[in-house]
Amino acid sequence: MAVSGSRPRAREAGVVLGTLPPGPENTITDVAGVRVGHVTLIEGDGPLVPGQGPVRTGVTVILPHEGNVFREKVPAGIFVLNGFGKCLGQEQIDELGVIESPIALTGTMNVGVVADGLVEHAIRTNPDIGITTSTVNPVVGECSDAYLNDMQGRHVRQEHVLEAIAAASPGLVAEGCVGAGTGMSLFGFKGGIGTASRRLPERLGGYTVGALVLGNFGRRDQLTIAGVPVGRELAGWRPDAAPEPPESGSVMVILATDAPMLDRALRRLARRAALGLARTGSIAGHGSGDYIIAFSNAVRIPHEPSERVLTLPHIVEDGALIDGLFQAAVEATEEAVINALFAATTMTGRDGHVRYALPLDETLAILRRAGVVR
Amino acid sequence: MAVSGSRPRAREAGVVLGTLPPGPENTITDVAGVRVGHVTLIEGDGPLVPGQGPVRTGVTVILPHEGNVFREKVPAGIFVLNGFGKCLGQEQIDELGVIESPIALTGTMNVGVVADGLVEHAIRTNPDIGITTSTVNPVVGECSDAYLNDMQGRHVRQEHVLEAIAAASPGLVAEGCVGAGTGMSLFGFKGGIGTASRRLPERLGGYTVGALVLGNFGRRDQLTIAGVPVGRELAGWRPDAAPEPPESGSVMVILATDAPMLDRALRRLARRAALGLARTGSIAGHGSGDYIIAFSNAVRIPHEPSERVLTLPHIVEDGALIDGLFQAAVEATEEAVINALFAATTMTGRDGHVRYALPLDETLAILRRAGVVR
Amino acid sequence: MAVSGSRPRAREAGVVLGTLPPGPENTITDVAGVRVGHVTLIEGDGPLVPGQGPVRTGVTVILPHEGNVFREKVPAGIFVLNGFGKCLGQEQIDELGVIESPIALTGTMNVGVVADGLVEHAIRTNPDIGITTSTVNPVVGECSDAYLNDMQGRHVRQEHVLEAIAAASPGLVAEGCVGAGTGMSLFGFKGGIGTASRRLPERLGGYTVGALVLGNFGRRDQLTIAGVPVGRELAGWRPDAAPEPPESGSVMVILATDAPMLDRALRRLARRAALGLARTGSIAGHGSGDYIIAFSNAVRIPHEPSERVLTLPHIVEDGALIDGLFQAAVEATEEAVINALFAATTMTGRDGHVRYALPLDETLAILRRAGVVR
Amino acid sequence: MAVSGSRPRAREAGVVLGTLPPGPENTITDVAGVRVGHVTLIEGDGPLVPGQGPVRTGVTVILPHEGNVFREKVPAGIFVLNGFGKCLGQEQIDELGVIESPIALTGTMNVGVVADGLVEHAIRTNPDIGITTSTVNPVVGECSDAYLNDMQGRHVRQEHVLEAIAAASPGLVAEGCVGAGTGMSLFGFKGGIGTASRRLPERLGGYTVGALVLGNFGRRDQLTIAGVPVGRELAGWRPDAAPEPPESGSVMVILATDAPMLDRALRRLARRAALGLARTGSIAGHGSGDYIIAFSNAVRIPHEPSERVLTLPHIVEDGALIDGLFQAAVEATEEAVINALFAATTMTGRDGHVRYALPLDETLAILRRAGVVR
Repeated sequence: MAVSGSRPRAREAGVVLGTLPPGPENTITDVAGVRVGHVTLIEGDGPLVPGQGPVRTGVTVILPHEGNVFREKVPAGIFVLNGFGKCLGQEQIDELGVIESPIALTGTMNVGVVADGLVEHAIRTNPDIGITTSTVNPVVGECSDAYLNDMQGRHVRQEHVLEAIAAASPGLVAEGCVGAGTGMSLFGFKGGIGTASRRLPERLGGYTVGALVLGNFGRRDQLTIAGVPVGRELAGWRPDAAPEPPESGSVMVILATDAPMLDRALRRLARRAALGLARTGSIAGHGSGDYIIAFSNAVRIPHEPSERVLTLPHIVEDGALIDGLFQAAVEATEEAVINALFAATTMTGRDGHVRYALPLDETLAILRRAGVVR
Repeated sequence: MAVSGSRPRAREAGVVLGTLPPGPENTITDVAGVRVGHVTLIEGDGPLVPGQGPVRTGVTVILPHEGNVFREKVPAGIFVLNGFGKCLGQEQIDELGVIESPIALTGTMNVGVVADGLVEHAIRTNPDIGITTSTVNPVVGECSDAYLNDMQGRHVRQEHVLEAIAAASPGLVAEGCVGAGTGMSLFGFKGGIGTASRRLPERLGGYTVGALVLGNFGRRDQLTIAGVPVGRELAGWRPDAAPEPPESGSVMVILATDAPMLDRALRRLARRAALGLARTGSIAGHGSGDYIIAFSNAVRIPHEPSERVLTLPHIVEDGALIDGLFQAAVEATEEAVINALFAATTMTGRDGHVRYALPLDETLAILRRAGVVR
Repeated sequence: MAVSGSRPRAREAGVVLGTLPPGPENTITDVAGVRVGHVTLIEGDGPLVPGQGPVRTGVTVILPHEGNVFREKVPAGIFVLNGFGKCLGQEQIDELGVIESPIALTGTMNVGVVADGLVEHAIRTNPDIGITTSTVNPVVGECSDAYLNDMQGRHVRQEHVLEAIAAASPGLVAEGCVGAGTGMSLFGFKGGIGTASRRLPERLGGYTVGALVLGNFGRRDQLTIAGVPVGRELAGWRPDAAPEPPESGSVMVILATDAPMLDRALRRLARRAALGLARTGSIAGHGSGDYIIAFSNAVRIPHEPSERVLTLPHIVEDGALIDGLFQAAVEATEEAVINALFAATTMTGRDGHVRYALPLDETLAILRRAGVVR
Repeated sequence: MAVSGSRPRAREAGVVLGTLPPGPENTITDVAGVRVGHVTLIEGDGPLVPGQGPVRTGVTVILPHEGNVFREKVPAGIFVLNGFGKCLGQEQIDELGVIESPIALTGTMNVGVVADGLVEHAIRTNPDIGITTSTVNPVVGECSDAYLNDMQGRHVRQEHVLEAIAAASPGLVAEGCVGAGTGMSLFGFKGGIGTASRRLPERLGGYTVGALVLGNFGRRDQLTIAGVPVGRELAGWRPDAAPEPPESGSVMVILATDAPMLDRALRRLARRAALGLARTGSIAGHGSGDYIIAFSNAVRIPHEPSERVLTLPHIVEDGALIDGLFQAAVEATEEAVINALFAATTMTGRDGHVRYALPLDETLAILRRAGVVR
């Protein structure tokens, strides 16, 4: 189960998105072996002192499996819906079709330091890196927490990355204002981390697709829940006093699956997450860096294979099975975004900027009137 | 205005999608200079005799401007949401950033012949092609009309392409079972051609974005109108007797704008149409060839420029303006799909296969109950 | 062995390119199962009568294996070095990672009709296409034979495609002015079809990489053979009287291998062919449509698999093995281009345009002086 | 002029590559406004102590113009020849078509810290970044200096980046074992930084294309100079005692031009640099991260434009002009690689690993025998 304080998750509140059933916890960790860890940094209040605070940021890591991912890489594919972002590692994933490091998410200007933290982790775990074996391709995604956080301070340090990796665990996934999600905004409300999953029926292999989003995009009037334009009705609800920063968005989506899939099919899967974002009202705004990374941990590519030819399992791309996986990716992404909104609580950041939590009572009342929630 | 027989267009029936206002006719031809022409081929009934009939197919052409598009090319960009399709011309658009022929849409297996028809048209209009000047890059998109049509017959001929170009006109755009849309299916109902447009406010330049779709995708239970999962409620309504062909889909979207934009920004615009498709319930199924072509006719690239350096106008990609264009692309695409459904009428094709028109009374009743239509 | 009339192939004349050994015939058909077929169309002389002649064109087909490629698809990848071309089928290869039809090469303006011919072939071989199973993705590449041929006439017809497929055979591959190569020009000399192969040592699996090129690019002064700028020395040799058409080039490269490789790795292999072209002096000129298609026939993807998960062999992408394959692709492509030049004989085409064969005596003399040939 | 100690540059030694003339200094800084700065870090000797030394690394920065590149961005395009690398910034360049930070080159594992240094520089120069304006997209490329350097130590710090930027100057460009090139290897010899340029004739606008390479790829037997397989003859010359690290390569190429070009055309230009690499013997080996970044400083995109529509100059992409630019890119890249080899001097690094300088006497003797140098 995901942990989100006292606020219910969307499904607990009666909001059912899509038609496929979720996995047991409705989290990305429903894909066996996947682990998630957060480090949350909150410190100081009041006026921004660039480089000092207030601090509203953090780092979130997703570990593809329980082992050493540098030694046992997993197939992966990326889709860039809108490349206004500073994602690191994409080219090598495109070229080699694998991920060989944990995936880290953070605030935009921390990317360099967080990448360095992943390198440090890789070296500690694999002391031969860069000496007798190849280097490592760290994967870092980001969103801008400029509205609440002292971004220039780049307060996430190497040790926070190591800490987040050490803290990564299966099962429970904290949502909302945690880790990389600490300072994020979503449809003009408080945003952050959200997760969800979908499970295919046994006749389609019983595979699971899990999504984790770092949600930080959209204007309030765009917010759509279960097809209902909730945001338009909430447009006048406690408007923000401070002006938006000009670069208003971004979202990172991580998709995990236990269906055996290789890079090309995972790129196809990643593209479907964009359709899930659209269901929440996203128009992939100009300033929004919208990236989706999909991996399968049902396939492992050894760093130093003992044979000349690998034998790789790969699902048959016929309609029913792959369409099921596509639908799962759409639905899990949609629900992960809404879960981020449901979980995140009101936060005051730099210069007294306030991001209000999505008002659940008002929201559920709207959804009830639309007949979507009973 | 679009012409769709006695059935109302979505907006006429009270279905308002998105928040931006449409252009005067709510068609792709609201972008001044754009012309659309159809040739519709319907012949025969009864059992399929491969190569002979029954015929339920056609060709639709979109002319980017009123002039000779080979001599005055327009910037263009393509996004492939799902490349299970046989689109012709993409590589050269990617490489050179321009379209230099009308865009033709047709049934899948007609692509070769229709391409040849565009070449014939180009030669007749520009007799120097392939002799004293370069060759021409015909642009052809397709969807499969296998359920109703004798695809193997490839009944669209060169002369039909020439006829459609000759018939192309501004203003009125016929929707539904016309041209390339004749034999198409959409969310398990009769599909085909649909169009819509959006106009930005004057403070954002008053630009227009128009969309034309050849809609042929989706399962019935996926259909979503104005956020309402209409298809789930209609799932049991007159189920089709004949099994679906295994390759069940495809959609071609053509976006036109009078905002001055170059190829890169047009690729960005094209990507947003995918979000509009998502709003109608699309998961971009495996067998669906989903392509979007966007062009701007506010910029003209001469075939033989007289100077060494061109001076190209291009919108500033700041948030408000380009986000407006993005939103326009999302909304116009969504409405064009729904317009295709509203316009298309029940058709019986090969082997007695029947595609029912979307039942408007039932649909509007569902939308009324959801509070979306009054 | 390749058949090239009385002119020797480059290697027979003592020109050794690269360091890897060729396969037994030094042809693309050294990859077991690959077959090549040509239909050559030469008719008429004198002034161009657009649409009538003179005819100097044709079609070449490459069959990936001895079976029904629609039922047993092969992994494939494409690299577009310069997309000024009208290649058909690329998007679906990118999306699905397979080829399911013979690959056809022809003159630019024949693409539509040749695609239609491939469709016709597919239907005859698989009568369920477009009725009870999906449609087919024909793959067609082209170069412009404008200098010698009546391009507007599009003299290649459906029956020529069927004939070329029927004539396709393993072993011997005709080079030079045959098939699609009939009217082509290469570095200002007569060009056309060329082929070559490379074989890896047993410790690297003994795999073969074969290349077939349709060579139609470059200016005379750019021609480089075995690193020697032969073209500069031949610049003044019998200059062409007629002016070049403005779109002066294009090259299609087909790479085949029996190393088990999937689409991503094949895209990597395809990219290396560009480096082979560079060795011959190519700068990938603006007007040159330069495409490379690579496939492996050591892997077969069934059209209707009986299992839910395929087990796919794939080479380990470690340095020695894949670098060997990369080097093989570079060298085979380079030699295939030079073989096209060595094989092609002087041809007079429309309007008395003459393309001279590469003067072998002069060329070999230059190479001897440079110490490259003994 | 480029500065390379007492060793001559290739052209000074009589090696003429290609046919276009170089600019006045034959450096990337021949493109007016471009500046280059290096910080070189050499410290310690003897056995590797991971994290401590010996240190053989550095950082090189290329500034696109004399102004504030965040406020006045330049159009740019990237080509990834082989994505086994950790380049940062690519996605945003692809999406927005501009560069807005200096380009930094460094050793592989320094990428994170160097990116952070570029962010620091951007903040100092533009204190509104991440507060009242958007964030910045740092561009960092890398190659592996594992053979000579303590990579794990990541010895390049933020201050070195700032120092290199402060030191950047027009005119003179140090080549060889400087900056990012300090610990690099090239064709089994000592490699590093090299630069060259080409100037088009006045009838083609008199434009300049400059190249700067960080050269770190290839096996000795592959080295080709002016078409002569020099490396094969030098294969036995003082073989390296220590085994190669498994990831043996990489090359970063930066192309600058004063021809007005936008992102798409610059991507085309970038692709041609790959052909220049091929001329030096590159096969783009598996472990080699081969990236090319091209920019034009003849076009400036303001960070906050005052108008809604920009007017952008862009060369006409006709054959003669753009082919000239393409040829310039090929030749400048080729010569920059060879210049890196000519400039670099023998270096001993970690664990006593020695990289010998290319033996110029032997090399020139071979070239003389081949008739390439007099």
